[in-house]
Amino acid sequence: MGTFQGHLLAGTFFLIFSLYYSVMVSLALLRGQRYLRPPLPPREKRGHRWWQLVPVQGIMKVLISLGGIIPEFFYPPGVNRLMIVDWEDPRRPFVFYENWDHVTMYGFFLLSGVVDIVSRSCRARQTAKLEQAAEALAFCVLALLMAAHLENRGTLEIRVHALFVAPAFLVGLVLAIEVWVPDQPALWVLKTWMGLVLSSWMVQLSVLMYAPPSGQPWRAENPEDLAFLPIFFCWHLALGAALLAAVYGLCSLWHHRSSSRREVPGAKYQPCPRGYSNEDLEKLGTEGVLQDEGV
Amino acid sequence: MGTFQGHLLAGTFFLIFSLYYSVMVSLALLRGQRYLRPPLPPREKRGHRWWQLVPVQGIMKVLISLGGIIPEFFYPPGVNRLMIVDWEDPRRPFVFYENWDHVTMYGFFLLSGVVDIVSRSCRARQTAKLEQAAEALAFCVLALLMAAHLENRGTLEIRVHALFVAPAFLVGLVLAIEVWVPDQPALWVLKTWMGLVLSSWMVQLSVLMYAPPSGQPWRAENPEDLAFLPIFFCWHLALGAALLAAVYGLCSLWHHRSSSRREVPGAKYQPCPRGYSNEDLEKLGTEGVLQDEGV
Amino acid sequence: MGTFQGHLLAGTFFLIFSLYYSVMVSLALLRGQRYLRPPLPPREKRGHRWWQLVPVQGIMKVLISLGGIIPEFFYPPGVNRLMIVDWEDPRRPFVFYENWDHVTMYGFFLLSGVVDIVSRSCRARQTAKLEQAAEALAFCVLALLMAAHLENRGTLEIRVHALFVAPAFLVGLVLAIEVWVPDQPALWVLKTWMGLVLSSWMVQLSVLMYAPPSGQPWRAENPEDLAFLPIFFCWHLALGAALLAAVYGLCSLWHHRSSSRREVPGAKYQPCPRGYSNEDLEKLGTEGVLQDEGV
Amino acid sequence: MGTFQGHLLAGTFFLIFSLYYSVMVSLALLRGQRYLRPPLPPREKRGHRWWQLVPVQGIMKVLISLGGIIPEFFYPPGVNRLMIVDWEDPRRPFVFYENWDHVTMYGFFLLSGVVDIVSRSCRARQTAKLEQAAEALAFCVLALLMAAHLENRGTLEIRVHALFVAPAFLVGLVLAIEVWVPDQPALWVLKTWMGLVLSSWMVQLSVLMYAPPSGQPWRAENPEDLAFLPIFFCWHLALGAALLAAVYGLCSLWHHRSSSRREVPGAKYQPCPRGYSNEDLEKLGTEGVLQDEGV
Repeated sequence: MGTFQGHLLAGTFFLIFSLYYSVMVSLALLRGQRYLRPPLPPREKRGHRWWQLVPVQGIMKVLISLGGIIPEFFYPPGVNRLMIVDWEDPRRPFVFYENWDHVTMYGFFLLSGVVDIVSRSCRARQTAKLEQAAEALAFCVLALLMAAHLENRGTLEIRVHALFVAPAFLVGLVLAIEVWVPDQPALWVLKTWMGLVLSSWMVQLSVLMYAPPSGQPWRAENPEDLAFLPIFFCWHLALGAALLAAVYGLCSLWHHRSSSRREVPGAKYQPCPRGYSNEDLEKLGTEGVLQDEGV
Repeated sequence: MGTFQGHLLAGTFFLIFSLYYSVMVSLALLRGQRYLRPPLPPREKRGHRWWQLVPVQGIMKVLISLGGIIPEFFYPPGVNRLMIVDWEDPRRPFVFYENWDHVTMYGFFLLSGVVDIVSRSCRARQTAKLEQAAEALAFCVLALLMAAHLENRGTLEIRVHALFVAPAFLVGLVLAIEVWVPDQPALWVLKTWMGLVLSSWMVQLSVLMYAPPSGQPWRAENPEDLAFLPIFFCWHLALGAALLAAVYGLCSLWHHRSSSRREVPGAKYQPCPRGYSNEDLEKLGTEGVLQDEGV
Repeated sequence: MGTFQGHLLAGTFFLIFSLYYSVMVSLALLRGQRYLRPPLPPREKRGHRWWQLVPVQGIMKVLISLGGIIPEFFYPPGVNRLMIVDWEDPRRPFVFYENWDHVTMYGFFLLSGVVDIVSRSCRARQTAKLEQAAEALAFCVLALLMAAHLENRGTLEIRVHALFVAPAFLVGLVLAIEVWVPDQPALWVLKTWMGLVLSSWMVQLSVLMYAPPSGQPWRAENPEDLAFLPIFFCWHLALGAALLAAVYGLCSLWHHRSSSRREVPGAKYQPCPRGYSNEDLEKLGTEGVLQDEGV
Repeated sequence: MGTFQGHLLAGTFFLIFSLYYSVMVSLALLRGQRYLRPPLPPREKRGHRWWQLVPVQGIMKVLISLGGIIPEFFYPPGVNRLMIVDWEDPRRPFVFYENWDHVTMYGFFLLSGVVDIVSRSCRARQTAKLEQAAEALAFCVLALLMAAHLENRGTLEIRVHALFVAPAFLVGLVLAIEVWVPDQPALWVLKTWMGLVLSSWMVQLSVLMYAPPSGQPWRAENPEDLAFLPIFFCWHLALGAALLAAVYGLCSLWHHRSSSRREVPGAKYQPCPRGYSNEDLEKLGTEGVLQDEGV
């Protein structure tokens, strides 16, 4: 639905997912995890309680995607847009382009959810790479269809969407790279940050294009309005970074409190090495010593 | 031959090759092979039966390419297009552009077939990298000539071909990357999937441009028709993935049946580790233990 | 400030920073360091003198950025440009575009400085990757805003700025790559060289566009003037390389003198292996020997 | 010199260099060398005969570049184009654009030659990475200036040069990649092949644009003429591959003859492992055995 509510809803979903990922990434960093989502053990070794067997994230993806797809076809109640060619018209024209466009986008997120569910509960061994690839595909399709979306629109809409396509494609690219290298914390942070940027940008653009707070719509024919777009986008970059830092700070507080409560006297909390590892520091130290001796 | 039959034929050949690759990739995944096409042993250690010495794939490529090249020049029977400059015309114009274009495309697949044959049967030691590079070159040339093809065409034809060039170039790129890293199952899947996408898209476009089922040709001047192109392409992406999944499922059934028939009592089938390897899981487990102890 | 002084000032700051980096890179190469900026030891092991605890580079970045931001808003004295929408005008137009543009650029360098300070003095363990990422972000934002800057300008200005965006983006890219591989001397040299090129080019363009030495402004309508731009840019590439070589030479002299003064008799100066390492040479030697024996 | 002779001369130089590299690469492959140009030993261990100390390749580059630069300024004899601004004209116009363009291109090859000489004879230890980087820079500058060259030209000239820029940029890119990974035979072959393609294409274009064999100049307004350009380029790709294969074949003959002449009875010629290494084959074999046992 190319309306204010449609854009705002999609933006809110992305925002919630991005914030959830921020928490996950923060905790993974604080705990020094090797993988963002630790791979499930083979099925026979998993717990037997029902909630350990339910792939929550996949089910969420499926439900949210269906929540996007069904209104595209049947909202407002009474209409039915579930056809692609108007067979009654002798020219056989394609109809409901925008709805099929949005449905295709949602459809690939639905596919990603289905792959998650199948991989996590129907197979003896989880295929994490496939899940990752399906998610990457969803974002690449999103970027591709958004880019195709732009044709025959006004300059303002093109710019606004182009600045949305860039982080969406970057998320897709990072997800695709993670198929090969899943153990890179810097990539987790990058994709989460880009997710926050694209969702806050989507909220902004739904407000900006359909309900501007100043009561004045943005004017594509006004060069000043266009020129401020990339500046605002850069501010969203900073905003996303600030959001991520805030989430990390809160998680850090919670993590330290919960770990200090559980702490056994005598055992010390071992912070995970980030940035340069201990090993590197030691090597460096040794090198320095060797050099000092050599000189 | 820029006709319905020409495009359909080429699309069918690509589809058959892609399906053959799907089977090969599925079996390679199920067997946990290290390479998609296991390198031949040095010649003196190869089997001595004649069918072990014949490079089937190379010969297929040569025959199919010749089956594309010869009609370009001599079909319908009686014509001869085997000249490039019309020397009788005082302006010396170039002639039969489209035929030379298609012949060049087929020619590089022919070259790839010849390289396969030479590498596999004429040399003491197979040069797998060279075979890979020749195949990559064939797809890159295909993409380059398709892109050059687009000039002076209608918008619809440009879009349709551009969406063909993208997966063709991606296949070429993946093949070129595989020259260096041939042992990446994710890349095998990617290139096979892209092969399925480009061949099903080619079949679709030959139907769509020359024989539309609705009886109405697509109209480039109709924005709706153009806008549906990327949507259809995304559906082909999903279709290719579904085809690949179906082939994998069938191969998996066959593989389990054949391996359970051969199974010796006491020996268990050892599934190949995919996604995260056992080693990673163990490390992770150890880390978890260490952390639990540390906390 | 889009004036001669504004551009010249920013160019000079970049030049000073690039020269400082040249010295750092030269010394790091001469000393055979593993990292360009050796990671700080954990806080409890650092020296206790105050100047060892002050993150000089971060503070410099903050001061210089503030020195760029404040005049944008309040120079010449008396004006106040600290507003973004003119609320008195009924059309609510955006105002002071260029100032907000420059402020955003400076702002991300300010952010990078703040990250440096926080990482180096407020945390138990330095997060070098985050510092690197913030610096990369600053250059990427610089390139993005410069590229957006170009709209509605004359051809000459577009070309001049495009040739500035290229090295700025390359610096951002190299900095982003260094988040993952910080121990590549070739990348240090590349980014320093690009930094020198972009700063000398910025000085050149401020002179060229606002105060040409020949007294004749460059004319965008003159193809010769436009054609000489890339030639001059290539000369700046050579000039940057020459500057870097000169700095390296001076540092080399100083390093040899200071190391020979400290030299203990009997201990020899051990030059750092550059290019191909000793290990490689030895392997090669062994191979050569083996081959000679084999042949 | 933008004339037939100028282009033909430059093309011939590139061709000679590419053929020389083909021989070098072929021999390196046949001998199973680890590096294309084996790094020099430290200076004190080098031979003392004068020809071992002379960096032939660097001196060749310098001489050929000077042979390109000097005629640009002083040919035909009597002229002097060694000025860049016509100070006598009150408008101070830039002059001799094309000559400065070509001189800048040659200048970076000259720089590369100087770096070779300095690195190989003036330093205690060869800096192979710097030599590589200087060569990469020369090709990148060539591509950049060629691309800038294209403005205000006819369509035919733009296409012809664009197809020249592509392999030149690819050579520059491969050379830049080789700064980090110099031990990849596939990259040596790629860059040599691209070198052959660009030089044979340059010879072709000098003939094609200034002295066509059919006596009819190519016409940019003729779509057929333009359409055949990429086809011809693809043929040059095949021609380059054929040339490289021919050189490799000749070198292989020579290598086998010379090595069989030197061969000591009892010692066998050990072919270098190419494609998949022995180690891989063994691993594969072991896996196969394990699998057979497991199944």
